[in-house]
Amino acid sequence: MHNSLEAPRFAPQDLLAYACGVLATLGVPDDDAREVAACLLEADLSGVYSHGLVRLPVYGRRIRAKVVNPRPVIGITSATPATALLDGDNGLGPAVGSRAMIKAIELAETHGIGLVGVCHSNHFGAAAYYARKAVDRGYIGFACSNAPPNMAPFGGRLRFLGTNPFAVGVPAGREMPLVFDASTSVVARGKIIVASHSGSSIPEGWAIDPQGRPTTNAKEALEGAVLPFGGPKGSAISFIIDILCGVLTGASFAHYLNTLEDLQSVQNLGHMCAALRTDLFMPAADFLRRMDEILGMLRACPPTPGVERVLIPGEIEAQEESRNRRLGVPLVPEVVQQLVSLGEQVGVPFPMVPTDAGVPDEH
Amino acid sequence: MHNSLEAPRFAPQDLLAYACGVLATLGVPDDDAREVAACLLEADLSGVYSHGLVRLPVYGRRIRAKVVNPRPVIGITSATPATALLDGDNGLGPAVGSRAMIKAIELAETHGIGLVGVCHSNHFGAAAYYARKAVDRGYIGFACSNAPPNMAPFGGRLRFLGTNPFAVGVPAGREMPLVFDASTSVVARGKIIVASHSGSSIPEGWAIDPQGRPTTNAKEALEGAVLPFGGPKGSAISFIIDILCGVLTGASFAHYLNTLEDLQSVQNLGHMCAALRTDLFMPAADFLRRMDEILGMLRACPPTPGVERVLIPGEIEAQEESRNRRLGVPLVPEVVQQLVSLGEQVGVPFPMVPTDAGVPDEH
Repeated sequence: MHNSLEAPRFAPQDLLAYACGVLATLGVPDDDAREVAACLLEADLSGVYSHGLVRLPVYGRRIRAKVVNPRPVIGITSATPATALLDGDNGLGPAVGSRAMIKAIELAETHGIGLVGVCHSNHFGAAAYYARKAVDRGYIGFACSNAPPNMAPFGGRLRFLGTNPFAVGVPAGREMPLVFDASTSVVARGKIIVASHSGSSIPEGWAIDPQGRPTTNAKEALEGAVLPFGGPKGSAISFIIDILCGVLTGASFAHYLNTLEDLQSVQNLGHMCAALRTDLFMPAADFLRRMDEILGMLRACPPTPGVERVLIPGEIEAQEESRNRRLGVPLVPEVVQQLVSLGEQVGVPFPMVPTDAGVPDEH
Repeated sequence: MHNSLEAPRFAPQDLLAYACGVLATLGVPDDDAREVAACLLEADLSGVYSHGLVRLPVYGRRIRAKVVNPRPVIGITSATPATALLDGDNGLGPAVGSRAMIKAIELAETHGIGLVGVCHSNHFGAAAYYARKAVDRGYIGFACSNAPPNMAPFGGRLRFLGTNPFAVGVPAGREMPLVFDASTSVVARGKIIVASHSGSSIPEGWAIDPQGRPTTNAKEALEGAVLPFGGPKGSAISFIIDILCGVLTGASFAHYLNTLEDLQSVQNLGHMCAALRTDLFMPAADFLRRMDEILGMLRACPPTPGVERVLIPGEIEAQEESRNRRLGVPLVPEVVQQLVSLGEQVGVPFPMVPTDAGVPDEH
């Protein structure tokens, strides 16, 4: 989802307070509410609007339908020294996932690497949020999640894989850190929904129709399945993420995963978080210097005709965050309306006053 | 490289004895020679001919040019409990990489997960070899390596990334294990070389010419650069592999990596091997049963029109291995000629007699 530059912008602190307030009325404890709100807001700040506050209404619907537990008792079991299993007790994904990454970092501090599997969780927002949590603390971070099936495996006709996202974060010295976050589909299903609304066609290779044929018709694509990125390679990566997050942890996997919109059923999503110390094999300062060097080399790579320059993974999101912190977070009218409506339902008014900086951006 | 069904076939044990003999005359100790020979032979058996015995001549040239050390003193340092750094002392990649995976498994046995970084190594053959080593011992295995630049990053015009391969292996119960092995390029450069020899064009999206423009001309592509799979996603994955294998371990990275054909310079390649216990979060038998279930679900997914069925990652290679063990390993005349010539140089005759089974396959 791309917000136009003309969308009204809202102050990040207002949005955070609103989201925390909404979650509190739904029975979510303050600490967890702050974590969930921060996860959604950070996605909006980074320009990843598909994983931002737009998700708050469905989180709310799921809590009220009692298929998500607002006050989970999150338990950690450690069967081996460097790994742990975290049972999310059906709590909100960002509350559960954040604890998993913090635990992975604790394990990495002592053992060099820490790996935490998660079961009984829910939609955890943008995977980058957890990778950044590791980076902010000076660790290399890895996070992934399974998701309900809406993607066909390579060679397959029906939905079987989730768009199972994964993120990697690596600290640097003077350079910005690397933060890579990707779904395992060619494009987010949201882009096909947008094309369907506007009646425009989609490029071949994005999706197949219900008969398994390539389609450029957005409506047929929505009835069919999205395709994995990179053909058999992305398909295998997505499948392996389901194995790590679902099969290994005891969470649901493949067809067993119910959708976010199914208000009758819990999801039992699984995640996997890992953290690595940067000083495993040399002093951290040397590693950071080497990171600066390779990031500089990548940026200096001559671009193809028509491309301004080669970007570091996460650079676009960092630029967007810088702009949105300065000017406010742009939210399109449909999302604002949903948030206003949610606020009315729970008695927490949405901060309708856009920021003064809510003017078309100079860029 | 695909070998035609009419290529003469050779008995695996003859090829293994030949490769061990050649390596022995080059000064490689018996244990290491067996490991290197097994790595190359396993690739040929699996139908991954680009990483099979075809590589033995260049391994030999590098040893004789003294840019690879036939008798390395491989040192392991462990700064943290669950990780280790292995200094390959410029030994042959498969000898070094195998020890890294064995060490990762030892660490996983005690700590749940084990991670071993490798520096001062060389071309380690097919990454699947190391993933299979973990699977054979009942562990989930992960292996990757950096490689000299021959791929443009997303948006870039010049070679900067290696085709940095990675492999994942996951044991199963009754089902065949999952063994996924992929380069991070759209296709292996070898396929473009083959097209160039036959004068045929290549599909758009495989490569760019030296000016960074998309090309279907194989010769221009060879002067230019291959492209990462999946656009920005594959480009980022390749870059992250270089960070893990090169930047983190102290090995060379990016432009610092010399090519295999450069007989003046050592390579200082880096690898990363990780192993995970399958009983981290539940009894191993339960995990294996769940693996059987998800693999069965994937196989049962209805195929797209024209596709026979959905395949498990590694299934094609397993079928090829079964056939090649039965019928012998097919080697094309150019490769046979190179091996005959190498054998003559070192006094270890290539076993020229094809197997009796070396007849066109019934399939």
